[in-house]
Amino acid sequence: MIGALDLNCDTGESYGNYRIGLDEEIMPYLSSTNIACGFHAGDPVIMERTIALAKQYGVSVGVHWGLPDVLGFGRRRMDISPADARCITIYQIGALKGFADAAGVEVDHLVPHGALFSMLADSEPLAKAVISGITAITRKWVLYWPTPLQRHRFYELAQQEGLVIVPELAVDLHYRADGSLVLERAKQRWDPSEVADRIERFVECGKLRTVDGTDLEFEAKALLLHGDGPNALDIAKAIRGTLSRLGVQICPASTLAMAA
Amino acid sequence: MIGALDLNCDTGESYGNYRIGLDEEIMPYLSSTNIACGFHAGDPVIMERTIALAKQYGVSVGVHWGLPDVLGFGRRRMDISPADARCITIYQIGALKGFADAAGVEVDHLVPHGALFSMLADSEPLAKAVISGITAITRKWVLYWPTPLQRHRFYELAQQEGLVIVPELAVDLHYRADGSLVLERAKQRWDPSEVADRIERFVECGKLRTVDGTDLEFEAKALLLHGDGPNALDIAKAIRGTLSRLGVQICPASTLAMAA
Amino acid sequence: MIGALDLNCDTGESYGNYRIGLDEEIMPYLSSTNIACGFHAGDPVIMERTIALAKQYGVSVGVHWGLPDVLGFGRRRMDISPADARCITIYQIGALKGFADAAGVEVDHLVPHGALFSMLADSEPLAKAVISGITAITRKWVLYWPTPLQRHRFYELAQQEGLVIVPELAVDLHYRADGSLVLERAKQRWDPSEVADRIERFVECGKLRTVDGTDLEFEAKALLLHGDGPNALDIAKAIRGTLSRLGVQICPASTLAMAA
Amino acid sequence: MIGALDLNCDTGESYGNYRIGLDEEIMPYLSSTNIACGFHAGDPVIMERTIALAKQYGVSVGVHWGLPDVLGFGRRRMDISPADARCITIYQIGALKGFADAAGVEVDHLVPHGALFSMLADSEPLAKAVISGITAITRKWVLYWPTPLQRHRFYELAQQEGLVIVPELAVDLHYRADGSLVLERAKQRWDPSEVADRIERFVECGKLRTVDGTDLEFEAKALLLHGDGPNALDIAKAIRGTLSRLGVQICPASTLAMAA
Repeated sequence: MIGALDLNCDTGESYGNYRIGLDEEIMPYLSSTNIACGFHAGDPVIMERTIALAKQYGVSVGVHWGLPDVLGFGRRRMDISPADARCITIYQIGALKGFADAAGVEVDHLVPHGALFSMLADSEPLAKAVISGITAITRKWVLYWPTPLQRHRFYELAQQEGLVIVPELAVDLHYRADGSLVLERAKQRWDPSEVADRIERFVECGKLRTVDGTDLEFEAKALLLHGDGPNALDIAKAIRGTLSRLGVQICPASTLAMAA
Repeated sequence: MIGALDLNCDTGESYGNYRIGLDEEIMPYLSSTNIACGFHAGDPVIMERTIALAKQYGVSVGVHWGLPDVLGFGRRRMDISPADARCITIYQIGALKGFADAAGVEVDHLVPHGALFSMLADSEPLAKAVISGITAITRKWVLYWPTPLQRHRFYELAQQEGLVIVPELAVDLHYRADGSLVLERAKQRWDPSEVADRIERFVECGKLRTVDGTDLEFEAKALLLHGDGPNALDIAKAIRGTLSRLGVQICPASTLAMAA
Repeated sequence: MIGALDLNCDTGESYGNYRIGLDEEIMPYLSSTNIACGFHAGDPVIMERTIALAKQYGVSVGVHWGLPDVLGFGRRRMDISPADARCITIYQIGALKGFADAAGVEVDHLVPHGALFSMLADSEPLAKAVISGITAITRKWVLYWPTPLQRHRFYELAQQEGLVIVPELAVDLHYRADGSLVLERAKQRWDPSEVADRIERFVECGKLRTVDGTDLEFEAKALLLHGDGPNALDIAKAIRGTLSRLGVQICPASTLAMAA
Repeated sequence: MIGALDLNCDTGESYGNYRIGLDEEIMPYLSSTNIACGFHAGDPVIMERTIALAKQYGVSVGVHWGLPDVLGFGRRRMDISPADARCITIYQIGALKGFADAAGVEVDHLVPHGALFSMLADSEPLAKAVISGITAITRKWVLYWPTPLQRHRFYELAQQEGLVIVPELAVDLHYRADGSLVLERAKQRWDPSEVADRIERFVECGKLRTVDGTDLEFEAKALLLHGDGPNALDIAKAIRGTLSRLGVQICPASTLAMAA
């Protein structure tokens, strides 16, 4: 039985007049949030607004950085060089930290977005470049990464460089028997009660049913909810309710990870 | 007779495969440089490279921020809101500070670019918004502004908020009798010896000949050279040579300004 | 009593994963539509999809072109040159015509978007440049322009060059007593029955109540509905219903204009 | 011995204030040119200017279309969908045709740029999507493709759809023994006399020496020169001189291809 979990969601993915996600509605349910930094989504005004919202509800703030492709929402792989990868990482960290500094808020974590995550999972040169960019700035922030961590060489490389990795469970994505995620180009609707059942089972016995019908054992400190899903708010409520009922404490993974 | 001056130039204005300026050649001649932050020019890889270059030659690093318009090189006014102005300021400061942090370099100044400068000079709401963005992050950096400072309400507003303003003289632009600059859409060629003569006269008696043929009295702590001029390197050499010959010390305005 | 009117709406304003407007729902109610061309909104995939939709419902297709500013949704003025204005016009016309050609559909009209419209209304050099761009390609398409036409020098310039101008009435924006539109940065909600009443009065006596409480006489061949309004679909239904009830024929302005 | 060849070069790759290539100098030496369409390089003003230049020297105009990535100059692969590929093709064809129509010039060919070319060579779904986009607009234009054509399934698919393919030889890139090109991220300097020797040997016996030191037999109707090379103008002169000396007629591939 798990005693504490982080409830985490991407926010700040709107862009100018375009709206994605229900940041104002969903923020009160979270313990941590990953804020888009203007490359795959988000813009300077949205970033400031989202950090203010996180501050208002005491939600811990993280860098959600991605590929330079708003049109593709950072979900199209691009053949960038390691230097590109390192520098877009530093740039976006800096930009978000600028808004955090201006708001008197601490950043405490990082989460790679979309295709950038997939590329880091696959490419050792890109993984090393990105890790070098992060550690050039700080080693104090935790980095969320999909559980099971052992699937990815990135995890090992990050650990070698002294980064603390938070294993994260995607509550509204399917897993395959090999532990890989079934990514979606556009977020699908999930039944909140089904999500609640998954969470309950995970909290009680650390297992998840895969699309292949098998059981997968998971270690996770954070539950990731996708804010661009068509009913993300209902899912947030369902998870929050389930965790409360089970007596699971909800707090940022940075505090959990440090204790580990 | 002026005893010390800052020799300042914009750098980092290349973009991907596109090159503007001779950063590698010109950096050794400078005491301070203003690095583009990816909105009107520059990109993450260029920013990292330019900061490394500045570090190599001990040149002090500043934020050169502008409008979100690479196609127009930040030289087309845009009707942005005060919130836009505040947030693009924070964003670009943060991004550059990210690279400075990663390189172990201190940022010490700020310079608004192109049309953004003109807009700040004209609009009190935009000026206030930008000043609020800067001071939300720091009051320690100096802000370069074209002399004569008294022409602009921005100067007064910035001072009220505790920002130190460095009066800057553009060596390769013409001034009108009212002290305003004759801005160019594309940088024109200047005769290096003519520039040297202007500088010599300014150092010796604090005066500059305007396009109208009158003499203008100037107080300036920094000499601004435009790096995208067709013969910027020759002009840099000419100025450096003149200042050395006259025994003028060349050092960052941040040190001069603080002493003032 | 007016016998025929065009019911016109902007569509194709989505961008990648971002959605604006209810193009699929609203298209069946229209007689003509203005499709965004990727500069202020829209993207190549959205453009193809929107033209297919227009074709399906027999809605006539027009070029809705704007400033290169997706982030600002083309609603921030930019200080572009006449050459810029001419060339962004030709570019966007060409792009939309490409999709129309590929779909076997005829383009029959043009509508400037947002801040570009305002700039054309104010600046004679920009107006001339844009008109030169249009006429270099075709003089066969009609150009929608807000009534009362006499307010704007653009109308005169366009007519001199042989362009047919369609006077257009915005059903969901307020007018001032001087005939100018009260533009909104983000589209506000309108009461459908109030819109229906406005339309009925306009059809019957050619008059509209202004925000100043006076009556304005209008000549208009097209009714413009804004697709990004929060209840655009209800308004479309209300207008369509009112026009049907009054026996007003609904057809593209290009046919009406030619007959005039 | 070859009697006629097309001398072809990419132009219009500048962007705003950024310059790449020596379009004005190199245009007089060409028989055909491929004009960038604003996605990987070029902008509306540059496009109009480049078409005017081509018209002035009687150089035939083609669509040089690429991935939406100015920062990467279209040289970074992106994981776009077939729908994306089809629609960015139609969009860019339309845009360039807009300027050609406005200038009273005929477009007669197409050339995919950089990473888009590589992706079309590798992916049958992308190849089919792009071919469907082209043929939806026209089957009259020829499509340049690197010789040896037989290496690529694209050639077969395009032929099946009735497109005429022009085999093209890159004069300033190396070939491997298997006929593949050694692509460069940034264009390298070539010795003009070495290029001239290659061309002479090709004209006389249809063969080229590969990087592996073997001889490759080539059929080519067009010679492709890269305009962003550091000495592109010297190379253009050297080729033109060699072709003249050998009595080879220089004319657009569209005329040669049609005759074939």
